[in-house]
Amino acid sequence: MKKQSKIFPDKSKEIVKNKNFKIIQHGVTAPSGFMVSSANAGIRNRRDLMVLYSDVVCNASGVFTTNKVKGAPIIVTMEKLKKGRAQALVVNSGNSNVLTGVQGIKDAKAMCVATANELGIKEDKVLVCSTGVIGKKLPIDKIKSGLKKIKIKLSNSKVSAHEAAQAIMTTDLVTKEIAVTIDNVTIGAMAKGSGMIHPNMGTMLCFITTDADLTSRELSEMLKKSIAKSFNMISVDSDTSTSDAVIIMANGTKGKVDIGKFQSALDYICLEMAKKIIRDGEGASKVLEVNVVGCKTESDAEKIGKSIINSLLVKAGFPTQLIPGRMFAAAGSAGVAFDQNAVDLYYEDELIVTKGKVVKYDKEKMQNILDNVKLNVTLDFRLGTKSATVYGCDLTYDYVKINREYYT
Amino acid sequence: MKKQSKIFPDKSKEIVKNKNFKIIQHGVTAPSGFMVSSANAGIRNRRDLMVLYSDVVCNASGVFTTNKVKGAPIIVTMEKLKKGRAQALVVNSGNSNVLTGVQGIKDAKAMCVATANELGIKEDKVLVCSTGVIGKKLPIDKIKSGLKKIKIKLSNSKVSAHEAAQAIMTTDLVTKEIAVTIDNVTIGAMAKGSGMIHPNMGTMLCFITTDADLTSRELSEMLKKSIAKSFNMISVDSDTSTSDAVIIMANGTKGKVDIGKFQSALDYICLEMAKKIIRDGEGASKVLEVNVVGCKTESDAEKIGKSIINSLLVKAGFPTQLIPGRMFAAAGSAGVAFDQNAVDLYYEDELIVTKGKVVKYDKEKMQNILDNVKLNVTLDFRLGTKSATVYGCDLTYDYVKINREYYT
Repeated sequence: MKKQSKIFPDKSKEIVKNKNFKIIQHGVTAPSGFMVSSANAGIRNRRDLMVLYSDVVCNASGVFTTNKVKGAPIIVTMEKLKKGRAQALVVNSGNSNVLTGVQGIKDAKAMCVATANELGIKEDKVLVCSTGVIGKKLPIDKIKSGLKKIKIKLSNSKVSAHEAAQAIMTTDLVTKEIAVTIDNVTIGAMAKGSGMIHPNMGTMLCFITTDADLTSRELSEMLKKSIAKSFNMISVDSDTSTSDAVIIMANGTKGKVDIGKFQSALDYICLEMAKKIIRDGEGASKVLEVNVVGCKTESDAEKIGKSIINSLLVKAGFPTQLIPGRMFAAAGSAGVAFDQNAVDLYYEDELIVTKGKVVKYDKEKMQNILDNVKLNVTLDFRLGTKSATVYGCDLTYDYVKINREYYT
Repeated sequence: MKKQSKIFPDKSKEIVKNKNFKIIQHGVTAPSGFMVSSANAGIRNRRDLMVLYSDVVCNASGVFTTNKVKGAPIIVTMEKLKKGRAQALVVNSGNSNVLTGVQGIKDAKAMCVATANELGIKEDKVLVCSTGVIGKKLPIDKIKSGLKKIKIKLSNSKVSAHEAAQAIMTTDLVTKEIAVTIDNVTIGAMAKGSGMIHPNMGTMLCFITTDADLTSRELSEMLKKSIAKSFNMISVDSDTSTSDAVIIMANGTKGKVDIGKFQSALDYICLEMAKKIIRDGEGASKVLEVNVVGCKTESDAEKIGKSIINSLLVKAGFPTQLIPGRMFAAAGSAGVAFDQNAVDLYYEDELIVTKGKVVKYDKEKMQNILDNVKLNVTLDFRLGTKSATVYGCDLTYDYVKINREYYT
């Protein structure tokens, strides 16, 4: 039995098919007027500090973790972004400046002041993020020393953007960068994220730059829309971080852009970055994409999808076994009412459960499906027309190993 | 800094201290008038079938999984218990009879009929439960053959109760039995459970017998109270099973009992059984007990506690490391508002976080605490007087191994 393409859209393919933008091999310095610089400040034994700088003051917006516990830098940056303006962003890895009390707020502010002084710009236009170990005092003196090397190394080169993307990595195995052009304007982005990934905004860091002329309100609205379908649809371990943020800065140097085209390009960027984070999930060897269709509301579909990708039994089993029972058990505990006898479950195009019963299926075809590096499953609840697509990864020995050893 | 015993009660110790009951080394056949019989029906290669039988018809009550997907035996048993009467219970392991469609319901009913015929009692007084693999047809012919050996082996011996407790095990490593006497009456219980443990009733099987004279309404009310503080406070993997049930049967042969005393004995039994399940969690090497105190409501305290014991980062890390950051991150994503700077975190009696900051602590004492097989932590939110105690276990390589290999 084949799935009907009408009700089972592959969202990212759909975006790319209809795209009005061109993907380029670049990062945050692709848009004109943005430069980066990075260094090893000695917080850890590799690159751990980066500054993103715009020639001119930008309109800016951000979306931040909904965790009730927030890192000091998040508190400081949220306050600054109320004015919707920014010219630079300073980020360190190796220490998240979380659970550091009043001293943590002082240190986050001091990081902004030191960056502003080095760059010769206003302190209130410098945003700050930190990622890494929780509960240790930020080594502010090391960071101040590190910042002294920053200004002379500012560059808009692709290599510099890549090094800056390396500087924000923690347990990430790969950097996460992307850039696209739409008509006259360009958007660039970098991200980090591998563990504590269960964004209910944000659970990772993602910095997006553009030379388009957009107000901070326009940026804010578009960013929220893009995040709802990308970062908020992934989970590595259902742990929502205290530190994470998506920030967008627009310097306006290339003028106006078609809002519709920009939104679809931003959707694409956020979804690709979210997928890169899932592929780089701590210890993960395989990605699980769950399409939940035929629901009454998008929220219902999302709840069911997230319950499935967050199920430990699903995560442990899906790479090697057919697990319809675990998927149904996870769906049934999402708090959404449905008739278990009306749900169809597909592995790729193959029908596995219908009328409340596991059907006979082609074992060889199923083994081929399980052997892929990505598994796509679809659950059709036949209750309505709303759907959601969520992205998870498997639970492996390496996840346990990393998180027994990595101190947070 | 020492914890004040007034605000940090150890619930199970408190129950035992105030107990009006006596613990005895026995199981479900401890109360008079109950017998069990078990066999290997060939569903798997060890004991897999058991019948619990009362001389006389009992008042009975049950609490069942809230999962929207329910196994066929659960559906059949819930329907029968509407009348509040039962005389026997038949249980098989090796096959849960879940995702088996209309045939599954027929098979569950056929199991009751066959049991009633063998015992010479009415079919509507036989309850049924199944646990094991999901999505495979119940081997009803094997079960019918197995039931033929059942009647002649009925016994009230301690050994028979123990064998019956073995017959309901799946990935459990140990049997779970308990019995207590209160005044003139006795309560006995057996349980199984190791994976798919995140009871929002039930996620395991627990069968409780008593010779006290109690109505099905009294049984139902007391059972709900006991479950709320025991089975509903544990989690192995945050996966709520489709099959699980707590059933209590009272045959009344020993007459009336003080309700308050019975309630506290039942509280004790349910909490001990819940703890036995957690200690036997799949792959688990260590138990985490989280006291959440100083909340506005019990529900808030429970949400925070469960968010902590279900955090993968907490589960992976707590046996070997001090992880205040992960505990705060998990607490902060529970959806309960609090001031992160007002929360105190203790490891046993040792203060670790206060005023939003990790404090200096005695490293040697902390290592001793981490070396224990059980870790007790307390979070005081200073918002009110309500509290909850929840119980979890660690995430190990073995959990991943078991659930990559064990088909459900």
